[in-house]
Amino acid sequence: MLVVKKFGGSSVANKDRVFNVANRILEDYKAGHQVVVVLSAQGDTTDELLAKVAEINDNPSKREMDMLLATGEQQSVALMALALQALGYPAVSLNAFQVAMNTSRTYGNARLKEINKDRIEMELERKNIVLVTGFQGINRYEDVTTLGRGGSDTTAVALAAALNADKCEIYTDVDGVYTADPRIVKDAHKLEEITYDEMLELASLGAKVLHNRSVELAKKYNVELVVRSSLTQAEGTIVKEECKMEKMLVSGVAADKDVARIAVIGIQDRPGKAFDLFSLLSKNNISVDIILQSIGRDGTKDITFTVAKGDLQDAIKLIESNLEHLEASSFLFDDNVAKVSVVGAGMASNAGVATKMFEALYDADINIHMISTSEIKISVLVSEKDADDAVVAIHDHFKLGVR
Amino acid sequence: MLVVKKFGGSSVANKDRVFNVANRILEDYKAGHQVVVVLSAQGDTTDELLAKVAEINDNPSKREMDMLLATGEQQSVALMALALQALGYPAVSLNAFQVAMNTSRTYGNARLKEINKDRIEMELERKNIVLVTGFQGINRYEDVTTLGRGGSDTTAVALAAALNADKCEIYTDVDGVYTADPRIVKDAHKLEEITYDEMLELASLGAKVLHNRSVELAKKYNVELVVRSSLTQAEGTIVKEECKMEKMLVSGVAADKDVARIAVIGIQDRPGKAFDLFSLLSKNNISVDIILQSIGRDGTKDITFTVAKGDLQDAIKLIESNLEHLEASSFLFDDNVAKVSVVGAGMASNAGVATKMFEALYDADINIHMISTSEIKISVLVSEKDADDAVVAIHDHFKLGVR
Repeated sequence: MLVVKKFGGSSVANKDRVFNVANRILEDYKAGHQVVVVLSAQGDTTDELLAKVAEINDNPSKREMDMLLATGEQQSVALMALALQALGYPAVSLNAFQVAMNTSRTYGNARLKEINKDRIEMELERKNIVLVTGFQGINRYEDVTTLGRGGSDTTAVALAAALNADKCEIYTDVDGVYTADPRIVKDAHKLEEITYDEMLELASLGAKVLHNRSVELAKKYNVELVVRSSLTQAEGTIVKEECKMEKMLVSGVAADKDVARIAVIGIQDRPGKAFDLFSLLSKNNISVDIILQSIGRDGTKDITFTVAKGDLQDAIKLIESNLEHLEASSFLFDDNVAKVSVVGAGMASNAGVATKMFEALYDADINIHMISTSEIKISVLVSEKDADDAVVAIHDHFKLGVR
Repeated sequence: MLVVKKFGGSSVANKDRVFNVANRILEDYKAGHQVVVVLSAQGDTTDELLAKVAEINDNPSKREMDMLLATGEQQSVALMALALQALGYPAVSLNAFQVAMNTSRTYGNARLKEINKDRIEMELERKNIVLVTGFQGINRYEDVTTLGRGGSDTTAVALAAALNADKCEIYTDVDGVYTADPRIVKDAHKLEEITYDEMLELASLGAKVLHNRSVELAKKYNVELVVRSSLTQAEGTIVKEECKMEKMLVSGVAADKDVARIAVIGIQDRPGKAFDLFSLLSKNNISVDIILQSIGRDGTKDITFTVAKGDLQDAIKLIESNLEHLEASSFLFDDNVAKVSVVGAGMASNAGVATKMFEALYDADINIHMISTSEIKISVLVSEKDADDAVVAIHDHFKLGVR
């Protein structure tokens, strides 16, 4: 069996953790499996490098940042190889040049394009445990690139796909995917299985277990993922196309507090005006999430939408200076809001979920500002102060804690 | 004009030094020259990595050590590129993969074999300042190698040779090559010029300005070196094949205190016995420096030689356990000795140098234990406590301070 295992930066933060991970790797190797390990940089290494950059250049070029930061993963894989060798097992570290981990051109946020598996397969044939730098690649100019947030997860999934691995385990500091954030909901329940689509919705809702890009890639190449903890032997959560058990009505509840709401009032109700507004925002790299349009009086309409809190000021400035062009009368904004969502693959064929969710919120006396639905998700916008109560109320009402 | 400049690890140790070096680089760039810069790792980076290794593996594999330590230079070049860019100048960093810096197979002590100049020349044509990682290369397995002690000097000289550079400047924390160590001899004099051969002898005598391998390479490809300080504008010392001025009788005086003496007594005076002794030592990687053989009585001889202090214990153990095989009666050793040498290209054609040196030592009441001579060097072994006095006495006697 060929297993790809990915460990995050905190898993290799010091000597004890390095040997803890080494032993997790050896469990599979001793069982006779081939093991490919993807590692992130030690967290403090990256922080130290960023501190040095901050002293030197306040607008650093992405090319040189990639060149700099990629050293962190190279240190992690070399140190892990030394730890495995110290325990008496054969290991070899490889960086993105050695693997030939080809990416798109974009520094800082490159996409993996093609992985050459020759070197890895050669090392596996020699019975080596193969340690590969996560998060990084090489572009067509032979320059170092990095894959952006969650990049090491993406490296692991891409390697699992390229090598046709039997298993891809993502080790993290939580022991799986939960029905809700256990810090908010006391009886939150660890899921045995979850579909790619559900995981995608949950990740985008702030359940920061797996980055979306890695889940998309896993779905595309049908790589079965296991999310588990490097600190316990708990089984973790399997992420796959179809779950064995019947589709769960609701898999989980999540809150995203990084949300602000903007309402543009009294827009002339003519074709193209909504397009003008959203193209203005997208040209300035501001992503819009929930959108709600209401017909106003006197041939005008109001458009309300949400953006990330960090984009609020930019969005307001843009709208302010374009009010005339948009033929709108005014605008409002509110950054004391949060998005609360339920996710479940079974939802598509069951109309009662939304009603049940609204009922839970009504019972808890929580006011709903906006509603948005997709095939497997229902999101509501509530006041930020109500967000945690909303998650608890919904989690209880769907009886997610009692399984 | 194309200039190669090499800066050591201490030259990039903090923000101020990074910008100091950046400005030294820009002096040439602003004058319209093409500039290729070789950098070492920041000293503390290497120390931190070695500390991490010490915790993990007490007998680390050289392959993984090279993979680990090579990250230090990659960080240096990226940070320097960011500093130059912050000052408004175009710069690009390149590692050994990107340059294609091909070496022999040996991890930890590889030899440079071939440098591909395409990428560097392309970047120079684009008016970039090119920053290249020193100390490292890639072997035929596409693995990272390092070049051993003084490796970054070697990288710089090899690049200067490959690119047919007009100048190769080695920046260090001293402002040139002196007639003696200025900490010992107050009126030690900075040399304007010195030949490759003299530099080689001085380097091997503990004047740790340039590593021998880089000087050998410079001599082989006739690369004119300049040794100068990154902290002052002083002119430095030029290292070249022939010096303009008439060959100096004596260029410098140096002391090497890392010496121990061993005497093997009463060896049977038969052919092959000296060979037995020295092959025994070389098989165990113990280098022997000065050798002196004396005929003893009764058909036996005594062989006295010097080794590095660090090799003394190993050498003694070897000899002790092989006394019978060597047909020797006993041995003595002394690690309170030092080697004091005068170096000068003019010495070969002037018989009076040795006499003058012995005269200086006699006047200073310093006893000579052993003598060794070469074409351009005379070394004597003295008691360690006399070493500094010997250097001062010789330096005075040859009037090296008054120029």
